[in-house]
Amino acid sequence: MSDLAQQIRELAQRARVAAATVALAPSEVKDRALSAMADALLAARAAILAANAVDVAAGERAGLSAAMLDRLRLDERRVQAMADAVRGVASLPDPVGRVQREWAHANGVRFAKVSVPIGVIGIIYESRPNVTSDAAALCLKAGNAVILRGGSESFASNQAIAHALAAGLAAAGLPAEAVQLIPSTEREAVKQLCGLTGLVDLVIPRGGRSLIEAVVAHARVPVIKHYDGICALYVDAAADLAMAEQIALNAKCQRPGVCNAIETLLLHRAIAPRFLAGAGRALLERGVQLRGDAETLALLGGAQPPRVVAANAEDFRTEFLELILAVKVAGSAGEAIAHIAAHGSHHSDAIVTDDAAVAEKFLNAVDSAVVYWNASTRFTDGGEMGFGAEIGISTDRLHARGPMGLEELTTYKYVARGIGQVR
Amino acid sequence: MSDLAQQIRELAQRARVAAATVALAPSEVKDRALSAMADALLAARAAILAANAVDVAAGERAGLSAAMLDRLRLDERRVQAMADAVRGVASLPDPVGRVQREWAHANGVRFAKVSVPIGVIGIIYESRPNVTSDAAALCLKAGNAVILRGGSESFASNQAIAHALAAGLAAAGLPAEAVQLIPSTEREAVKQLCGLTGLVDLVIPRGGRSLIEAVVAHARVPVIKHYDGICALYVDAAADLAMAEQIALNAKCQRPGVCNAIETLLLHRAIAPRFLAGAGRALLERGVQLRGDAETLALLGGAQPPRVVAANAEDFRTEFLELILAVKVAGSAGEAIAHIAAHGSHHSDAIVTDDAAVAEKFLNAVDSAVVYWNASTRFTDGGEMGFGAEIGISTDRLHARGPMGLEELTTYKYVARGIGQVR
Repeated sequence: MSDLAQQIRELAQRARVAAATVALAPSEVKDRALSAMADALLAARAAILAANAVDVAAGERAGLSAAMLDRLRLDERRVQAMADAVRGVASLPDPVGRVQREWAHANGVRFAKVSVPIGVIGIIYESRPNVTSDAAALCLKAGNAVILRGGSESFASNQAIAHALAAGLAAAGLPAEAVQLIPSTEREAVKQLCGLTGLVDLVIPRGGRSLIEAVVAHARVPVIKHYDGICALYVDAAADLAMAEQIALNAKCQRPGVCNAIETLLLHRAIAPRFLAGAGRALLERGVQLRGDAETLALLGGAQPPRVVAANAEDFRTEFLELILAVKVAGSAGEAIAHIAAHGSHHSDAIVTDDAAVAEKFLNAVDSAVVYWNASTRFTDGGEMGFGAEIGISTDRLHARGPMGLEELTTYKYVARGIGQVR
Repeated sequence: MSDLAQQIRELAQRARVAAATVALAPSEVKDRALSAMADALLAARAAILAANAVDVAAGERAGLSAAMLDRLRLDERRVQAMADAVRGVASLPDPVGRVQREWAHANGVRFAKVSVPIGVIGIIYESRPNVTSDAAALCLKAGNAVILRGGSESFASNQAIAHALAAGLAAAGLPAEAVQLIPSTEREAVKQLCGLTGLVDLVIPRGGRSLIEAVVAHARVPVIKHYDGICALYVDAAADLAMAEQIALNAKCQRPGVCNAIETLLLHRAIAPRFLAGAGRALLERGVQLRGDAETLALLGGAQPPRVVAANAEDFRTEFLELILAVKVAGSAGEAIAHIAAHGSHHSDAIVTDDAAVAEKFLNAVDSAVVYWNASTRFTDGGEMGFGAEIGISTDRLHARGPMGLEELTTYKYVARGIGQVR
């Protein structure tokens, strides 16, 4: 076994031991630890900002994009926000120990289905240092030990943050090994982690497609992927066009760089001319580039680069994450549903219509984590959906679908109480 | 791509198409199909029994054990039981469309968490032809398409059964491709199936360890393993020993070949002499071989092969599936809990005690799918736990833990209804 493999295995073994303790820790102990972790982040502010300055300088030299540098950069205010978020997790209800269901066998054995921690969770994420403390806080609150692996560009920041979090844990009497950072930026370390059956119970990869694919290819432990969001808005023949325009503008423009923004606009043929004349212009005014199919282009008066261009097949399968929108005319709601099934990513899709029958058909047939009728796809978010916080948005189908909050960071067991019953 | 790989891919593509139809099929259509599948099984009785005779003859020539031949062999009564079981699944409530939770955003958007089918499920199982119809019925009822791969010894039987099931589906107007059998007994076919991301949503391997390990090693799609049950019974210092004896006899002897039978008996030092003198003798009289640690052996008057022998370390990690019981003396409930954590398989474990505090500590600390207080581990079963039927018992932690019934063959989506809300 390579040194790195041995190192990752030993780290996971320490996590396994710590997990047994945090799984049984009472709520008040976990909350006290979260509070101590928040304090420790603030106390370590100088060290964290110094480490972050090293990361940012290296990122600038490496030519990171402005958006990446923005996500990477910390300041006093952001460290304060990280501490506040950790304290916010402490204030949420404990998901562990919740009795989901109780019933009795005819013979009197009483069964209870009870929420319990998952165990050891590996989280692989992009170069956003705040995720280090967010993920640690959520996993701990749900009684799990966590192994963190942030993007290599944020390695020094993450080390400083994880160091502070471990100090907070220890101060509250919980094992510091409940929150550990992988001490390597090599992708090989991720592959090793994903192979540790019996030590790691779940790996959650967020971020880039190539990283997630590497995880899937090497994983022997369960994986819940946080992939891309190729979200569509379908404007039906019976739509309130003013409402549809507001939703299109919001879902595309309010924050184009996130996974719940729309990338595709499907227009029923009956309203396409009117909608493009009004909302199409409004989208262009907001700086959106429209990539239309032939019918859309014709309705817009032909291609007018760079604002109006012809869409190719790939555009309808692309998560642009910027002010670009692929537009297509559909002959019916059924055609729109089929387009979404063939091209979407099963994340979030919406219909705008006043026809309840068409709406229910769409809600039923579109197989996405969240399906909307007359509302913006931007509500696919743990905070907006009332989960208190989220570790990310699952694009997988099993265990957790859509926003993953504290509840989704637990599993369950059955507890059976009898008076000597046998079969 | 090899011919076999291409063949498996095309089969999965047909399953994907069929899944979209069965996912939206109303309950009455699915139940009519199940009824037609039961009829078709009975109508095809002669063909099924003829195919089974071929399998059994080959199995006898190959020297299969009596137990394996018994599981493989069909007769009129067993085919009738298979048809009855399929009809029984039709009578269960439809798990699809159940609203698990409803709530509203402060802005009025109404969210519902709704049960939906998983999609395409691959089931890999041992040479038991009845599983072919059981698994097909459960998957269909939950709105899924299924790809079946039974043990090679039952291949001819499974072909005849699957042929009948497909005819029943088609007679009810559902796509026959919702139930397909892999037309190959090569293990390579299983590896191919497990790699089909985007086409297969879940693979459930039941049966032998080497097969399950091959699945885990090759899978790129989610897997829910149905592994072994190394179940323990701990008899506490405060146990009612007559109750403990009844539970031990039941959990070991009623049906030793199943995964919820106990393999390990842990005895508190304070009651070990009395318990072994009474229950120990009763177990021996029932033909159980006791494999004791040094303290147990001394209490039993030393080794008396073949009925009383010394246990080695491996005995406490072994699923015997026969009348063999590994016995160990423990100094405390804590020691028993630690033994189970280190040696068990997180399936089903029980404590017998009259001390409620000790019992609750055990129920809380033992991290198994089902944990029992004063009841036999033999109740870990979908039928006994009120699930109506089961596809097996998951030894994994995510999505489904313990018995997997219809509910565990579904996932969920969120449906959001608004009046134009945006962020």
